[in-house]
Amino acid sequence: MPTITSVNVIDIRFPTSATLDGSDAMNPDGDYSAAYVVLQTDGDLAGYGLTFTIGRGNDLCVAAARQIGARLTGCDVDELAGNLGGLYRQIMSDSQMRWLGPEKGVVHLSAAAVLNAAWDLAARRAGKPLWRFVADMTPEELVAACDFRYLSDVLTPDEAVEMLARLAPTREERIAELAAHGYPAYTTTPGWLGYDDDKLRRLCREAVADGWTHVKLKVGANVEDDVRRLAIAREEIGDLTLMMDANQVWDVPQAIEWVNRLAPYEPLWIEEPTSPDDVLGHAAIRKAIAPVGVATGEHAHNRVMFKQLLQAGAIDFCQIDSCRLASVNEIVPILLMAAKFGVPVCPHAGGVGLCELVQHMSVVDYVCVSGSLEGRVLEYVDHLHEHFVDPVRIERGRYRLPDAPGYNARMHDESVAAYRYPDGHRWGG
Amino acid sequence: MPTITSVNVIDIRFPTSATLDGSDAMNPDGDYSAAYVVLQTDGDLAGYGLTFTIGRGNDLCVAAARQIGARLTGCDVDELAGNLGGLYRQIMSDSQMRWLGPEKGVVHLSAAAVLNAAWDLAARRAGKPLWRFVADMTPEELVAACDFRYLSDVLTPDEAVEMLARLAPTREERIAELAAHGYPAYTTTPGWLGYDDDKLRRLCREAVADGWTHVKLKVGANVEDDVRRLAIAREEIGDLTLMMDANQVWDVPQAIEWVNRLAPYEPLWIEEPTSPDDVLGHAAIRKAIAPVGVATGEHAHNRVMFKQLLQAGAIDFCQIDSCRLASVNEIVPILLMAAKFGVPVCPHAGGVGLCELVQHMSVVDYVCVSGSLEGRVLEYVDHLHEHFVDPVRIERGRYRLPDAPGYNARMHDESVAAYRYPDGHRWGG
Repeated sequence: MPTITSVNVIDIRFPTSATLDGSDAMNPDGDYSAAYVVLQTDGDLAGYGLTFTIGRGNDLCVAAARQIGARLTGCDVDELAGNLGGLYRQIMSDSQMRWLGPEKGVVHLSAAAVLNAAWDLAARRAGKPLWRFVADMTPEELVAACDFRYLSDVLTPDEAVEMLARLAPTREERIAELAAHGYPAYTTTPGWLGYDDDKLRRLCREAVADGWTHVKLKVGANVEDDVRRLAIAREEIGDLTLMMDANQVWDVPQAIEWVNRLAPYEPLWIEEPTSPDDVLGHAAIRKAIAPVGVATGEHAHNRVMFKQLLQAGAIDFCQIDSCRLASVNEIVPILLMAAKFGVPVCPHAGGVGLCELVQHMSVVDYVCVSGSLEGRVLEYVDHLHEHFVDPVRIERGRYRLPDAPGYNARMHDESVAAYRYPDGHRWGG
Repeated sequence: MPTITSVNVIDIRFPTSATLDGSDAMNPDGDYSAAYVVLQTDGDLAGYGLTFTIGRGNDLCVAAARQIGARLTGCDVDELAGNLGGLYRQIMSDSQMRWLGPEKGVVHLSAAAVLNAAWDLAARRAGKPLWRFVADMTPEELVAACDFRYLSDVLTPDEAVEMLARLAPTREERIAELAAHGYPAYTTTPGWLGYDDDKLRRLCREAVADGWTHVKLKVGANVEDDVRRLAIAREEIGDLTLMMDANQVWDVPQAIEWVNRLAPYEPLWIEEPTSPDDVLGHAAIRKAIAPVGVATGEHAHNRVMFKQLLQAGAIDFCQIDSCRLASVNEIVPILLMAAKFGVPVCPHAGGVGLCELVQHMSVVDYVCVSGSLEGRVLEYVDHLHEHFVDPVRIERGRYRLPDAPGYNARMHDESVAAYRYPDGHRWGG
C-alpha cells in the first residue's frame, strides 16, 4: 500500500514586477508567486498542487499549508484517493484554523493548495488527467466529495445528483467534441495597464493574427487613458469581442459612471468593478450598466459568496478560481449552482499555474455539469507556462484538452530550484 | 521627538480548552489566544494591541503582524498619532498583502492588531482613554482617520461629518451619564455548551444575583438539549432577557426550523445562525423567525459585509468585533452606517482582551455616533481579565467607563512570560 511519506511546501516567487506583466489598477507590481505543495509517496508517485499569490505574504500561505498538510504524512494513498470528501471535511472542520476565516484568506488559499495536490495525486494514481478522473466518478461519488454546507437553500446534494445524472449518459460525446476542437478561450496578454499604447496595439494585432476572438484590457486607473486604450483595441480587433477588468478599484456609483463612459466601445463585460465582497453592489452596478455585463469571482472567497452573487442576480459571468476556492470539492458545487441559474462559468486564470489548473474545471463544467459552451470563455495569459512539466496547450484561441495524468500543476525541478524564495539563485541565493 | 524603536509581536495562548470555557457548537475546544503587539518607543511610552484567535494559526497572525508592523520601526510618534488614517491607508494599500484577502482572514486580523496598538499608543501619548481620545477629535478629524472606501453608495465622508457634527455639542452630557451609570451589558458566562445542566443553572442564578438583566446561551449542537437548557435558563432568570448563539452551525432552512422550535422561550435574538458570509441567508432567516431577532458580526470580516447586512435588512443587532475589523479606522464607519439604518450596535466580546478593547467602541457609539442606548447591550464574559493591567470593571451588569490612558490592551509582563507559546512556562517552556 503506497503511503505519503512527506509533505513539502515551497515558497516560489517570480520577479514579474520588473516587466509590469500582470500590472493592473489595484496591483501595480505583483511578483507572481506560488505556495507549492508536493505530496511525496514511498513509491514513484507524487502529488503536486499550489495556491497563487503576488509576492509578499506567500510565506504566510506556505506556513499555513504546512500546518494543514501535516495531517497527510503517513496517509494511505488508496484510502485518500477514495475519500477526497473526507479529507476536505477533515481540513475544514479544524475549528481553531477555521476561526481565522472562516473559509477565506490565507487559511483557505492554503487549504486549496493542499487539496489541489491531493486531487492531483489521486488523478495521477489513476493515470488520468484530473478532468477525466472527475468525469469517471458517478454522480453520487462526485457529490459525496463536494461541500454543500450553507448551500441547501439553493442546491441540495440530492438535486445535485439529479443534475449530474441527467448529463452522465452523454459525457463521452462532449469529451470527443473537446478532444477535436478544444475549449474556447480569451487572452489578457495585450492589456496590462503598465504597457504603453504601442505595445498594446502591437499585442492586439498579434492576438488577432493568432486566432483570438476575445481580448481583455485592464482599466480603472485613469478614465481618459481607458478611453484611448479601448479605442486602440477596438480599432485593432474590429468586431471581435472586447472585455474590461477594473480589479476592484471603484465604489459603486463611480463604477457605474466610469463603465457608462466606456460603453461606446461595446465591451462584453466589466470585471471586478468594485469590492469582491459586495454582492449587492455588483447587483446595483449590473442593473445600471446593461447591456455591458458584470463578471466577478477571482476574489470571491468561497461557495457562499458565489451562492449570493447568483441569488442576487449580480453577475452575468461566473469567474471561479482554482487556487482561491478549496479545490474540486468546493468548485463543483459552484458549477452546479451557476448551471442552475443559467450563468456561464468563465474561469479566472493567468498568474502562475492558474491556466494549468483551471482548464480542468471548465472541462468538468462542460462535460458533467452544464453541458454547454454558450457564453463560455476561459482566460488565458501567456506567462510562466515554461516552468510547468505539462503546460497548457493553446491553438487558435482555444485550450487543447489536457491529456497528461494529474492536475498539470507540477513544476520543473530546475524552476523550483531557481525561483525558490529567498534562496533560489534567481533571487541571489 | 519620540520614535518607535521596535515592534514586538508575541504569540500568547491560554489553555482554555481544558475547562471547556468558551465551548460552542462550532468551536468545541478553543485555546484563547492573542497575537500581541508592543510598539516600543525610545521614551517610557509604548503602545499595546492584539488580535484574538482560538489557538492553532495564532502563529500565522503573529507572522503577518510582524510583516505589517515592520513599517512602524523608526516612525515618529507625534506624526503617527496625528495621522492614524494615513497609517491605515498605507497598510491597506500594500497590494501584495491585499491579494491574500482582500481585507479578510489572517492579514486583516493582523492589521487589526497593529492598528489597535497604534491607536493605543496615540491615546496613551495624549494621556487619555481611547474613547476620550476619539471623542476629542473633531468630526472632520475623525472622518479623515476612517475608511469609507466601497461605502459611498450608503454613506459618504461628507454625510459622516454631518452626522458626527449633529451630536458633537452634546458629547459631554452623554459622557457624564456613562461616568455615572456605566454602559449596559449582558453575560455569556453561564451558557457555554460544554457546561452541564447543574452548572448552567447555578451560573444563571448567580448572574441574576449579580444584577445581570441579559443572559446568553450557546445552542445548536442538539435541539433537544437546547430546549432543556433554555427551559432551565428561563426558569432561573424569569422575565429577564435571554439570547441564543449558534456560532454558524446551520444552513438557512435548518436555522429557521431550529429557531422556531426554541421561540417559545422568547429569546431576544439568535446570533450567527449560519455562515457569516451569508448576507442574504441572514435576511431570509430574519424574515422567517420574527419576532426573534437576528444578530451577527463577530465574523463579518470588514465594513463591506456590514454595509450589506444593513442594506439587506439582514440584522436586528450589529455585532462589531475590535479584533476582526481593522481598528477604529474601520469600526467608526460601521457605527455610522448602523446609526443611519437605525440598527443598534451590540459588540462581540469575550475571548481574551475583547471586552477590554470593544468597550471603547460602545462608548464612542453612544457619545459620538448614535447618541442612543436603546436596544444596546455589550457582551461580557468573565474570563482572563486578570492578565490585563487595566481590566474592564463591571458593576451590577454594566461596564464602568474606562479611565486609564489607552485602549486597555496591555497585559501583565508576568502573564506574557507565562503564556507565551510555545516557550512560556505554562506551556512547559
